[in-house]
Amino acid sequence: MATRRVGLWLIGAFGSIGSTVALGLASLKRGLASPVGMVTTLSEFQKLPLAHFEEIELGGHDLRPDDFTKILTDTHAAAGLYSLAQINACKEDLVSWQSNIRPGVLLPCEERIRTQGQDNWIQLVSSPLQAIQKIGEDLRDFKQKKQLDQIVVVNVSSTETQFPAQNCHARLADLNQALAKGEAVLPASSLYAYAALDAGFAYVNFTPSLGASIPALAELAEVRKTVHAGQDAKTGETLLKTVLAPMFAARHFKVLSWVGHNILGGGDGYVLDDPRNKQPKMQSKEHSVSSILGYKPQTHVSIEYIESMQNWKTAWDHIHFEGFLGTKMTMQFTWQGCDAMLAAPLVMDLARLSLYAQSKGEVGILKHLACFFKSPIGVTEHDFFQQFEMLKDHLGV
Amino acid sequence: MATRRVGLWLIGAFGSIGSTVALGLASLKRGLASPVGMVTTLSEFQKLPLAHFEEIELGGHDLRPDDFTKILTDTHAAAGLYSLAQINACKEDLVSWQSNIRPGVLLPCEERIRTQGQDNWIQLVSSPLQAIQKIGEDLRDFKQKKQLDQIVVVNVSSTETQFPAQNCHARLADLNQALAKGEAVLPASSLYAYAALDAGFAYVNFTPSLGASIPALAELAEVRKTVHAGQDAKTGETLLKTVLAPMFAARHFKVLSWVGHNILGGGDGYVLDDPRNKQPKMQSKEHSVSSILGYKPQTHVSIEYIESMQNWKTAWDHIHFEGFLGTKMTMQFTWQGCDAMLAAPLVMDLARLSLYAQSKGEVGILKHLACFFKSPIGVTEHDFFQQFEMLKDHLGV
Amino acid sequence: MATRRVGLWLIGAFGSIGSTVALGLASLKRGLASPVGMVTTLSEFQKLPLAHFEEIELGGHDLRPDDFTKILTDTHAAAGLYSLAQINACKEDLVSWQSNIRPGVLLPCEERIRTQGQDNWIQLVSSPLQAIQKIGEDLRDFKQKKQLDQIVVVNVSSTETQFPAQNCHARLADLNQALAKGEAVLPASSLYAYAALDAGFAYVNFTPSLGASIPALAELAEVRKTVHAGQDAKTGETLLKTVLAPMFAARHFKVLSWVGHNILGGGDGYVLDDPRNKQPKMQSKEHSVSSILGYKPQTHVSIEYIESMQNWKTAWDHIHFEGFLGTKMTMQFTWQGCDAMLAAPLVMDLARLSLYAQSKGEVGILKHLACFFKSPIGVTEHDFFQQFEMLKDHLGV
Amino acid sequence: MATRRVGLWLIGAFGSIGSTVALGLASLKRGLASPVGMVTTLSEFQKLPLAHFEEIELGGHDLRPDDFTKILTDTHAAAGLYSLAQINACKEDLVSWQSNIRPGVLLPCEERIRTQGQDNWIQLVSSPLQAIQKIGEDLRDFKQKKQLDQIVVVNVSSTETQFPAQNCHARLADLNQALAKGEAVLPASSLYAYAALDAGFAYVNFTPSLGASIPALAELAEVRKTVHAGQDAKTGETLLKTVLAPMFAARHFKVLSWVGHNILGGGDGYVLDDPRNKQPKMQSKEHSVSSILGYKPQTHVSIEYIESMQNWKTAWDHIHFEGFLGTKMTMQFTWQGCDAMLAAPLVMDLARLSLYAQSKGEVGILKHLACFFKSPIGVTEHDFFQQFEMLKDHLGV
Repeated sequence: MATRRVGLWLIGAFGSIGSTVALGLASLKRGLASPVGMVTTLSEFQKLPLAHFEEIELGGHDLRPDDFTKILTDTHAAAGLYSLAQINACKEDLVSWQSNIRPGVLLPCEERIRTQGQDNWIQLVSSPLQAIQKIGEDLRDFKQKKQLDQIVVVNVSSTETQFPAQNCHARLADLNQALAKGEAVLPASSLYAYAALDAGFAYVNFTPSLGASIPALAELAEVRKTVHAGQDAKTGETLLKTVLAPMFAARHFKVLSWVGHNILGGGDGYVLDDPRNKQPKMQSKEHSVSSILGYKPQTHVSIEYIESMQNWKTAWDHIHFEGFLGTKMTMQFTWQGCDAMLAAPLVMDLARLSLYAQSKGEVGILKHLACFFKSPIGVTEHDFFQQFEMLKDHLGV
Repeated sequence: MATRRVGLWLIGAFGSIGSTVALGLASLKRGLASPVGMVTTLSEFQKLPLAHFEEIELGGHDLRPDDFTKILTDTHAAAGLYSLAQINACKEDLVSWQSNIRPGVLLPCEERIRTQGQDNWIQLVSSPLQAIQKIGEDLRDFKQKKQLDQIVVVNVSSTETQFPAQNCHARLADLNQALAKGEAVLPASSLYAYAALDAGFAYVNFTPSLGASIPALAELAEVRKTVHAGQDAKTGETLLKTVLAPMFAARHFKVLSWVGHNILGGGDGYVLDDPRNKQPKMQSKEHSVSSILGYKPQTHVSIEYIESMQNWKTAWDHIHFEGFLGTKMTMQFTWQGCDAMLAAPLVMDLARLSLYAQSKGEVGILKHLACFFKSPIGVTEHDFFQQFEMLKDHLGV
Repeated sequence: MATRRVGLWLIGAFGSIGSTVALGLASLKRGLASPVGMVTTLSEFQKLPLAHFEEIELGGHDLRPDDFTKILTDTHAAAGLYSLAQINACKEDLVSWQSNIRPGVLLPCEERIRTQGQDNWIQLVSSPLQAIQKIGEDLRDFKQKKQLDQIVVVNVSSTETQFPAQNCHARLADLNQALAKGEAVLPASSLYAYAALDAGFAYVNFTPSLGASIPALAELAEVRKTVHAGQDAKTGETLLKTVLAPMFAARHFKVLSWVGHNILGGGDGYVLDDPRNKQPKMQSKEHSVSSILGYKPQTHVSIEYIESMQNWKTAWDHIHFEGFLGTKMTMQFTWQGCDAMLAAPLVMDLARLSLYAQSKGEVGILKHLACFFKSPIGVTEHDFFQQFEMLKDHLGV
Repeated sequence: MATRRVGLWLIGAFGSIGSTVALGLASLKRGLASPVGMVTTLSEFQKLPLAHFEEIELGGHDLRPDDFTKILTDTHAAAGLYSLAQINACKEDLVSWQSNIRPGVLLPCEERIRTQGQDNWIQLVSSPLQAIQKIGEDLRDFKQKKQLDQIVVVNVSSTETQFPAQNCHARLADLNQALAKGEAVLPASSLYAYAALDAGFAYVNFTPSLGASIPALAELAEVRKTVHAGQDAKTGETLLKTVLAPMFAARHFKVLSWVGHNILGGGDGYVLDDPRNKQPKMQSKEHSVSSILGYKPQTHVSIEYIESMQNWKTAWDHIHFEGFLGTKMTMQFTWQGCDAMLAAPLVMDLARLSLYAQSKGEVGILKHLACFFKSPIGVTEHDFFQQFEMLKDHLGV
């Protein structure tokens, strides 16, 4: 068998997740890192013919030009993450992959994000259709130039402001008609998703942004016989909620209130500091507990940007519950995690599993990937362990 | 169908768990409490013909004479638990059940426990065989006097000091021979277990004490065609360990160390303050994490008696784990629970499920009850959710 | 010496603080409670001729009619606070003091509070001046009827919405002129403060509401030769901030960020759930850290109403600081306190100390009481221990 | 004025504190670090003529040969501490100071420590007197070779096992007599202290080891007209205890129990894993709370070596206290600090302040340095802020 070549295309490639994926992938290829935090390297998944690390070529879009080595080195200096030795050893890939990064396509509705971009780099487009076209060209060029068998596009960019639902989201024909008229009926994330699916590539929405989470784009995926998954990766506090809530349910405790406060720094935190960008994330974090318990305790979630936290996130959750004979008890937890390090291995998991699904001829929403997401499209199960069983059952492992 | 009558016999009936079971059962019968914290009242278990609350008669042994109403009222005054209105409303049952409590049988090897007993109440026995005989008589009297169809004996007494393994524990014939010679080859908990199983009654070991956890007693259960389960109920910190460790495993995190500190007051805390009594509990708490992860991180568990905590227990756990690219992260939790309130509903669950198993003709160790125990006899699975699936699968719910 | 008789008049007497003061005072008089939590009963303050518990008569205003015994009994049933035995033993005082509670005076600007009141109880007034007059009459009636030597008025009512600054707040003459014109230049809390000071009584503002914290009312206190203190009692999270921040300063740590999240239930929580009422409290909580450190780290404070918490408040604070060689370290604390129980003893402390100050001929702001307040009027020192030294120095203890 | 030259001699120079002092001092000299965490660089201390960073020469003893640059680089790689750029920039000093480090003197009573040493490096001595003599020679050589005006010896070595009290500790004459007989009446830490004081140098005991904390050595300091201070630096959990306990006292709360659990890695943790070495540290941590409160709540302290923590220490404290009307409340904190980074700046503070005291003609125990120690010799005050006032008062700042 000739060597397989696959492309992992990151929307927001120069962000902290994107650059960690770049370093991680390059390190794994070289045997310089162990795949801790990657689900698909657990022993039970070993027998699946998933893409090997050395078969993956990295590319992507970003709204600002940047330099992987510099990003990683700066973060090392500021926050102590990564190892300089590893960065140096991986320089060849980092430089090579960097040359695959294409300017992002900008529509005028994302002000806060724009302030981080640079006007002479971004591809300004006059209409949504033109955006889709340009993104599609970038993806096809990547495939051809690197002679890739498959491509998976993963959105790891900053969270968008909430985009209002449109009637035309319901059906592909209506969506196409509205786009043909130049109407602003899709946010940027969905334009990228459209372009990826339209070109027949797999698409994964790692963020709370809209992406492919509308019926019209699910239809497009069916038409183009490709796959997609999302939305909003479950990396920290929400992961714990979907692990702990099932215990409260199984032991028949009555959860009275569940309060979660998140503080985080870094670029992700900065964008979330704008209430319009924070809203989709908050909603995504809120519903899992009620869904698992089967009733709605009082819940409260906050996300605050605290600059000194840099790449770290601390969540404090306070769970107030009633036990036997009306006795009120409390569980509290704090989770101190580095988001990029939690996210990057899951990006690679999702890329490998999406490509595998597509290669097996699956089409449409990959519901068996629900365990990776806060708001899994097309799935109502939020219990992490039930979702993990769904994954293993589907894969036959 | 004539009304079924079943007996719930508690070893250590006047302890905090025992008295909470008494109040709880009486309250549930009267519709004065909701069965929060009871697994068997979850909707999926409703279709099973488990014993109804009003079908259950309470009895037990204790090393000291006492008064349910007084115990409950004193605890209310000191620690704010229970409601006086509920205690008053349940007085009839509390007084009636109290008259079923028989003096415990004392062997001279349990000094610390003895200081809590009273010499003119306890049944002093001269040999282990005599102890077994007297306990058996008490149980059979209870069955006859109350015209019970079935009895389940649940050990909710204080943790014993660790009892050394004996060669005769391996086979029933050898055990019987040693007992016939008057040899001190069994701790008190196992004498009660012997008596219960020998009389054909179900037996549940809610504590870390030895109880029926030796091959010879498993053999006795087979011979007498009865059932038993244990050991050491999973109510708080260990429950959380067996809920969280599977998440660390499923996400391929590398747990570096898991430290758990428990502080508690009350009678249970007082007895555990003696290192000899603490040891079995510590061991029971230690192994679950390694078993689930498949490797052994550094673990440390402490249990300390802090008088001011009264009936409450606080656990602080610090979990240090490695994520992607060697990044160390931390999860901490504090669990503030009232042990008696966590334990009492599980005692009733175990009683109902054991009686049901026996009535269906099951014999021997009830492995499907593993989710209730820290050290489930005959089961190597420690993952709480896997254990919960085992329970539901076995019961067909 | 004839027995001294003093009056403690509580604005918001039927709230959780007010009713706890009533039970506490009655219990202390009878020797049924020990004065834990009261600063003025520390040994060093024993030599001061402060009002004895049995010399204090309780009265007050409230916007709703209520019953001390019922409030206390209900709270006991719902939240386990207080002892029924103590409530019963104190019934005589509770009933007697209850008859001293007068209907609150309502202006139409306090909607949320109004929903808790009752229209046939409250004293509706047509102008601010009329309100002041009616309040003054109630106070003078109390003094005369109970033959009191002194009265101290303490505002323990719910937090008002923030009241905008007015030009006429600067000078008493201007304020009087505006009031004479019927202008709504004062919030309710300040009308009560005006009435108290105008009648020559001591006034303490236990809340973040405006109260006497404007120059015109300070002037009134001087004119009437009486004393006042405030504002916003320091009972929990802010107390800890003013205890811990001095340590970070003294050890020359660089505090990078200080995040504090508060969750609480009860009536206080309910009113604070309205952002307009929350704002003054938030401001009062924010500034102490910066003031003590001498620079402004990033700070964030939230207060959320969580119904299940009832009378309890939990604060979680996350302090991120830099140590030597740029090393970032973290301190976190959780404080689980019952606000009424923390506040009530301080109300009695402030009453005793204000009456004592007035009896010694002091006039104006009682700056030496700064250690009791989040926003001490006229004092820039926020370090709790410096404030405590100020108290002891002033009192010569 | 000719440039002053002072020597800072570290017992245990190659430990984590010692190497951090070396890097810190070299960085401060070059303006590459800011003196965060150093008390003596607070603005109020600026006017004192304390030794400048560039006036300090570093030397010391250690039981193993080592290399500052290597130690620091290894720790950077393993635990992310320090900056490689800073280490490189300071190389000249690090190499130069390293050549001042002399082999430690070993007596056969410190087994666990010995396993870390190297037999061809250490100075084996046959008697305590010989040890004192050799240490003294090393110190005097240092002074002469580097032409130093003053020397301060600071013990930053691992904690010794507890050394039993001896009759001869009471008076210098008796001690000298016992030493002359070759009796093992002093632990290693006290031999170093003897040598330092006997040579007229200042001595600071940063550890819980015995050091100079016996009357006979206090007498020696008086005779030689030199100064000393100790013992056991207050860097983390105990610092917080002595900050928080005064608040509980000032607010008249009744502390019921105070539980503190410490987990730490690194060399310090390793040595403390031996119960004999842990004991002095535990005792030093226990008494401060009772001393401040004036009564003895139940206390419990644990220190556990958790390898994965490396240079970090996490303390979890659970403070259970009673408020008004018997209401039990709880405060918990976690402190996540890097011990070497907390300790190193205090070592420099203590060095500067001891040298200053000696230069001003002070003699004997430096009681005004109490705020730096868990068990301040000759001082009963444990309240951190009272101690800090003592420091400022004594220095007139």
